[in-house]
Amino acid sequence: MSVTAAQGFTAAGVAAGIKDSGGPDLALVVNQGPRSAAAGVFTSNRVKAAPVQWSEQVLKGGSVTAVVLNSGGANACTGPLGFQDTHATAERAADVLGLGAAEVAVASTGLIGTRLPMDQLLAGVGTAAKELSAHGGEQAALAIMTTDTVHKTAVVDGDGWRVGGMAKGAGMLAPGLATMLVVLTTDADLEAPALDRALRAATRTTFDRIDSDGCMSTNDMVLLLASGASGVTPEAAVFAEAVRAVCDDLALQLIKDAEGASKDIRIEVVGAASEADALEVGRSIARNNLLKCAIHGEDPNWGRVLSAIGTTSAAFESDQLNVAINGVWVCKKGALGEDRALVDMRFREVTITADLAAGAESAVIWTNDLTADYVHENSAYSS
Amino acid sequence: MSVTAAQGFTAAGVAAGIKDSGGPDLALVVNQGPRSAAAGVFTSNRVKAAPVQWSEQVLKGGSVTAVVLNSGGANACTGPLGFQDTHATAERAADVLGLGAAEVAVASTGLIGTRLPMDQLLAGVGTAAKELSAHGGEQAALAIMTTDTVHKTAVVDGDGWRVGGMAKGAGMLAPGLATMLVVLTTDADLEAPALDRALRAATRTTFDRIDSDGCMSTNDMVLLLASGASGVTPEAAVFAEAVRAVCDDLALQLIKDAEGASKDIRIEVVGAASEADALEVGRSIARNNLLKCAIHGEDPNWGRVLSAIGTTSAAFESDQLNVAINGVWVCKKGALGEDRALVDMRFREVTITADLAAGAESAVIWTNDLTADYVHENSAYSS
Repeated sequence: MSVTAAQGFTAAGVAAGIKDSGGPDLALVVNQGPRSAAAGVFTSNRVKAAPVQWSEQVLKGGSVTAVVLNSGGANACTGPLGFQDTHATAERAADVLGLGAAEVAVASTGLIGTRLPMDQLLAGVGTAAKELSAHGGEQAALAIMTTDTVHKTAVVDGDGWRVGGMAKGAGMLAPGLATMLVVLTTDADLEAPALDRALRAATRTTFDRIDSDGCMSTNDMVLLLASGASGVTPEAAVFAEAVRAVCDDLALQLIKDAEGASKDIRIEVVGAASEADALEVGRSIARNNLLKCAIHGEDPNWGRVLSAIGTTSAAFESDQLNVAINGVWVCKKGALGEDRALVDMRFREVTITADLAAGAESAVIWTNDLTADYVHENSAYSS
Repeated sequence: MSVTAAQGFTAAGVAAGIKDSGGPDLALVVNQGPRSAAAGVFTSNRVKAAPVQWSEQVLKGGSVTAVVLNSGGANACTGPLGFQDTHATAERAADVLGLGAAEVAVASTGLIGTRLPMDQLLAGVGTAAKELSAHGGEQAALAIMTTDTVHKTAVVDGDGWRVGGMAKGAGMLAPGLATMLVVLTTDADLEAPALDRALRAATRTTFDRIDSDGCMSTNDMVLLLASGASGVTPEAAVFAEAVRAVCDDLALQLIKDAEGASKDIRIEVVGAASEADALEVGRSIARNNLLKCAIHGEDPNWGRVLSAIGTTSAAFESDQLNVAINGVWVCKKGALGEDRALVDMRFREVTITADLAAGAESAVIWTNDLTADYVHENSAYSS
């Protein structure tokens, strides 16, 4: 289903020879109209890959007709020549599709600091253009995978319209955004500002709240393209909820496929004086390596939760903090609570609830455990 | 030599039965005078262990005559009863030494969230008091070890005076301070304000700049006690340098013994617009799990250095950044530099130089690689 679930979109995924493995590595998504409105959200890393710099410019016009995505190389930290490579990619797609380059967004993922094999990539754009189809969404989703073990797609139906999407991401998963490429499509009949509002609201509470390994990418990009092909203009709130639901679905798929992880950890911060406090505490817990190791060992080590909370500037009194792990309040009022032997941690999903006892605000952050497999996957080869 | 290297100090280390292993777990350090001036620096974690709360109060008077330290339990997140335990420990030491409890600092290290076995601990204080000796420094240093594989001591000689010390720490090593207990002693004849100035200046550029695993402890404490027994009052700058040198020596011993580490990584940030910028960048690099895995794999993955720099607010232009690994400038002006094959990473020490090309300030942060052994050590049991 993926990016071709909504009417008015074609897509393709091909093996262009960018990856040494010979696997699919180039995707093309084309908005066939009648409308070509678009919105985008990009990494907040100040070291931005060439395709991020390019696509940010393209999106300023609020219109995108095609997106070229490649795996097998991030085209980040590649200097002016790397930017020329991205430009040439957009030019080639524009040529074969009869567009202007300014209508083509580009996204890349893979190793930082190496140039892309442009002969293969440009030839691949031509091949992909010939294979474009209204059933090509799955192939496109497969072609953007890097260390992902499964391809990731999601669809939500509205009343006569749809939002669909694809995502890739398994490492460098942290806010601002998480590390990933995401393309969402809809046949709802909406203009760019409406898309932008819905997309920013959605990413703020979904992709921005998964924090697998604390590392922020240079290449993150979430695009939302609208074809208007359904002829239906949904209410803003209804559309926003559909976009949020697709983003939430994809975000959890990213967490569940995080490199080397054996646990998905849902961190609920409640009783916060502000949402910002809840987020700061949630992220601090999510990034505590010692806690992540403990969860891997199925050890309900709440002391490491408290030590993580204590590094934040959130409003709380340390003798009022409560912590539950999988529903057992192992820490009450900053000290020993219920028996930790009651905590059942056999399953993949683990919920840590941190009650700051300082207000009524809350937030949820997702992370993963820290495992020897994560170390192995990220030390055994460059990625 | 340790805490008894300087004149006027006695110490002891005993096995009180706090640790299940039966190993040494209680240390006592006593200042025999004639002076009993002292200064202390404590964790900035807002969740503070009972001994930190107690000792911060004691230090406000600028005088400490004895320090009781235990391994085998952190006495953190133990509520009002835990604080009573610390108070009782100080009272017992005061009783057996003929002091007031307000002259006794207490430090603890071990698992957060469990009460200490007070019968054993209080009896141990009595035993230790009987074993106090001017040669007890090594025994004291052995008794404060937790996951440390070696005990850590250092001494620097002045002109007629000395600064010596002991430290423990192997995990939860991050600023504010690093996670450790440190006791420094000197026979220099100085008052508390002079000790405080020297100690704060020293910890700011030593213990505060080791960041093994990004996790900040609830129990950190660095104490500096002065006996005045040498009768010599050194110049402030000379004394400060001696204290800094001892702290630097101990800090590097902590990094070299960090849990599961196979590499010690010296991160030099140069060309920064301010020291604060250099520190922010250094810490961001030190906490990047993906980079730490790459260094473990002896992979000079400079892209991960750039992506870590990019998350900071430091002054820099991404196309002006330069990165060297073990002296090879693998990244120049934000893009590919010298051949990464030239980088020799076989040895335990690895130097990463990040040049922000934005000014003349610099800072050094030490960290370690991230290894499967670290995961194992911190997931296989509660600590």
